[in-house]
Amino acid sequence: MTIVTCIAPVNIAVIKYWGKRDESLILPINDSLSATLDTEHLCAKTTVMISPNFTEDRIWLNGSEESINNPRLQNCLKKIRQKSELPAEMNDWKVHICSQNNFPTAAGLASSAAGYACLAYALAKLFKVKGDISEIARSGSGSACRSVYGGFVKWLMGTDPSGCDSIAKQVVPSSHWSDMRILVLVVNDSKKKVSSSVGMQRTVKTSELLSQRATTIVPHRIVKMEQALHNKDFETFAELTMKDSNNMHAVTLDTYPPCTYMNDTSHNIVDFVHAYNAAKNVVKVAYTFDAGPNATLFLLEKDVAEFIGALNHYFPPAENSDIKYQKGIFVENVVPSESILKNIKFVEQPAGKLKYIIHTRVGDGPKQLENSKNHLLNEDGLPH
Amino acid sequence: MTIVTCIAPVNIAVIKYWGKRDESLILPINDSLSATLDTEHLCAKTTVMISPNFTEDRIWLNGSEESINNPRLQNCLKKIRQKSELPAEMNDWKVHICSQNNFPTAAGLASSAAGYACLAYALAKLFKVKGDISEIARSGSGSACRSVYGGFVKWLMGTDPSGCDSIAKQVVPSSHWSDMRILVLVVNDSKKKVSSSVGMQRTVKTSELLSQRATTIVPHRIVKMEQALHNKDFETFAELTMKDSNNMHAVTLDTYPPCTYMNDTSHNIVDFVHAYNAAKNVVKVAYTFDAGPNATLFLLEKDVAEFIGALNHYFPPAENSDIKYQKGIFVENVVPSESILKNIKFVEQPAGKLKYIIHTRVGDGPKQLENSKNHLLNEDGLPH
Repeated sequence: MTIVTCIAPVNIAVIKYWGKRDESLILPINDSLSATLDTEHLCAKTTVMISPNFTEDRIWLNGSEESINNPRLQNCLKKIRQKSELPAEMNDWKVHICSQNNFPTAAGLASSAAGYACLAYALAKLFKVKGDISEIARSGSGSACRSVYGGFVKWLMGTDPSGCDSIAKQVVPSSHWSDMRILVLVVNDSKKKVSSSVGMQRTVKTSELLSQRATTIVPHRIVKMEQALHNKDFETFAELTMKDSNNMHAVTLDTYPPCTYMNDTSHNIVDFVHAYNAAKNVVKVAYTFDAGPNATLFLLEKDVAEFIGALNHYFPPAENSDIKYQKGIFVENVVPSESILKNIKFVEQPAGKLKYIIHTRVGDGPKQLENSKNHLLNEDGLPH
Repeated sequence: MTIVTCIAPVNIAVIKYWGKRDESLILPINDSLSATLDTEHLCAKTTVMISPNFTEDRIWLNGSEESINNPRLQNCLKKIRQKSELPAEMNDWKVHICSQNNFPTAAGLASSAAGYACLAYALAKLFKVKGDISEIARSGSGSACRSVYGGFVKWLMGTDPSGCDSIAKQVVPSSHWSDMRILVLVVNDSKKKVSSSVGMQRTVKTSELLSQRATTIVPHRIVKMEQALHNKDFETFAELTMKDSNNMHAVTLDTYPPCTYMNDTSHNIVDFVHAYNAAKNVVKVAYTFDAGPNATLFLLEKDVAEFIGALNHYFPPAENSDIKYQKGIFVENVVPSESILKNIKFVEQPAGKLKYIIHTRVGDGPKQLENSKNHLLNEDGLPH
C-alpha cells in the first residue's frame, strides 16, 4: 500500500492553549483541553502517496500547490521518516500530499489543527509508524495534537526540553457524554486579525498577566475540568469553559499592542448566553472563542431546539441570505414561548449579525478511508 | 457668607482605579494616577447655601431635584459638618445644593468625580473646613478625590482601615508639562453598560487576574509613571498609560459574567493610535479608556494639528452632523500629507463612528466663583 487517505477532526479548546515556551518545538506554557468535533460535519481530508517515480516531495492544499519547504511541514515529514518502519528503500521515496477541508475558512475553526492531525495520521499509516502520533501532529501545529484523539482530549504541556512528553491524551471518549452538542456561530466580520501565532508570541513577550494564567489559573481549571467531564457535570463544565475563554481574551487584550479577536457581535453573544442562562435560572449554554470573532457554544441535546429558537429570535438571520443558514445536525425550529422571551434580558439584534450556524456533536479521532474512490491523488500522484 | 459657588474639573486616570477593598468607605485596592482636565472645557459647577429658613437638606442635579438620602451624599455632608468651623448654630442650618455639568453625559466622562469634588470643595468653603478635602470627595465617589487638585494627581490607596490615609496628592502642577494636550473622542454607541461600581464589585469577586494587577503590576507602574511625569518623558508616559488601560479592560473581561466597556470603534481607535505611532516611528499619542467606549488621547501640542488631520481622514465625521464636531481648544485643520497616509497601516473607517471630539489640556483644581451672577440658587435657595 503506497497510498493512504484519511480524515481528521477539528477540535475546540475549552481550556485554552495560548503561548509557547519553545517556538520551534511548539511547546506550550500550559496544559489545554478540547472537544473533538464530529468529522461528519467538519473535517480535513488528506491523501498521502509514495512512489519510486516521484522526483520530489510535493503538497497541494485546498486545490493549489504550496511550498513543501514550510518548516512545520518539514518537521512532520522528518519525524515520520525517522520513525518509519517501511523498508529502507521505500523510506527514501518521495511523498505527494493532497489535503482539503470540508468547511470554509470563514468558520474560523482552526483548520491547521485538523490539517496537521490528518497529515500526521495519514503519514503514520503510510510509513507504518507505531504508537502515539500526537507529538508529530504537534510539531506541525500545536493544537493539532488534540485532533489525533476523539472525545475530550488533554494536551499535556510536558517538561522535557525535547518535547517528547508534550503529547495529547484522551480524557473521555465521545461516547462518554453522548448528548453533548456544539453550535458554531459564524459571525460576520471584516477586521483583519493578528494571527494566533504572532498574537501568542506578543502575549508571551508583553503581557504581565499571562504568567498568572499559565502557572496558577489554568492548572487548577484543568483538574476541575477533568472532574466535570468524568462526572458529566454540565454546570461546572460550562462555567470553566466560559471563564477560560474570557481569561484567554483578557491576556490577549493585556498584550502590547493589544490583540483583539472578539468583536461587538462576539460580546453580544456572550451577553446573550448569560441572559439566557439567567432566564432559565441554570447554566444551559456555554460559549468559547478562539483567535477570531466566532462563538462555539456547548449545550445538551435536550436544550438545542429551544435555544436555537431563542437565538434566531435575538440574532435573526439576514433576510436575503442565499446560503443555508443552519448546517449540520437537523433540528426542528422551535418558536420560543412568550414566557421565555419575557425573561431573557437582552435586546434583539439587527438581522444578519451571524452568517450561519453549524450544529454538531463530540466525535471520534482521525480515520482511514479504505475506499479508493476517496483518494485525492490519481495514479500519477497528482490531484484529480 | 452663606452661599458659595464653585467649579471643579474632570479627571482622567492614566493608571486606573478598578476595585474597592471597602465598599462603604470607598477604599481602593491600588493607587491610581490621573490628569486633571481644564475646567474651561469640562467642569462641574455647584452652588451650596445654608439658611436658618431652610427646613430640610435638598439637592438639585442637572435641573431636577434628587433625593438627599443618597448614602454617598450623606457621607460627604456628615464629614463636612463634623469638620465645620462655623458657629454651632449655623452648623445646624439646612443646606441646599444645586449642581450641573457643562458637558453632556454622552461624553462618558466621570461626571460623578467632578460633581463630588465640586460639592466637597464648595461645602468646605461654606462650612470653613480646613485642610485636605480629598477624603471627603472620595467618600462621595472614589475618583472624585483626584479632581480636588490640578495637574497630575495620585490617589494613594492608604492602609488605615478608617480610610484617613486614602487621599489624593498632587504629583506635578498643570504648569509642569504645559504642552500636554488631551483629545476626548466621543464614540457612537448604544449598548447598555454595567455601571463601573457594579463592574468593580464583580471584578473583585470573580477575576483571578485582578490581584496580580493590584499587588504587582500597578505598584510598579505608579513609580515609573511618577518618574515619567517628573522627567516629562512622553514615550514612557504614553506606554504606561496605554498598557494600564489595556490591563484594566483585561481584568473587566476576566470578570464573570464579563464586563465589556470598549466596543469595536474603541478597539479601532487603539489600532489606529498604534498604526499612527508606528508610521511616525515614535510614540506620539497614547490612548486610555474608562468604563465606556470613549477614548481619551494624550499628545503634545506640537503634534495635535497633524494628528487630528489624520484622525479626520481615517475616522471621517458623519456628513450631516448638526453638532459642532470639534470642541474645545481651536486648532487649524491640517490635511495629512500623502507620505504620512502611505505609512499608516490602517483602513479608513465608515463616516460617523465618532460623535465629536473635545480638545483640551491639563488644568487646575476646583475654584470658587466670586461673582454672585454665577450662583445656581436664588435668594430663596431655589434653582433659577
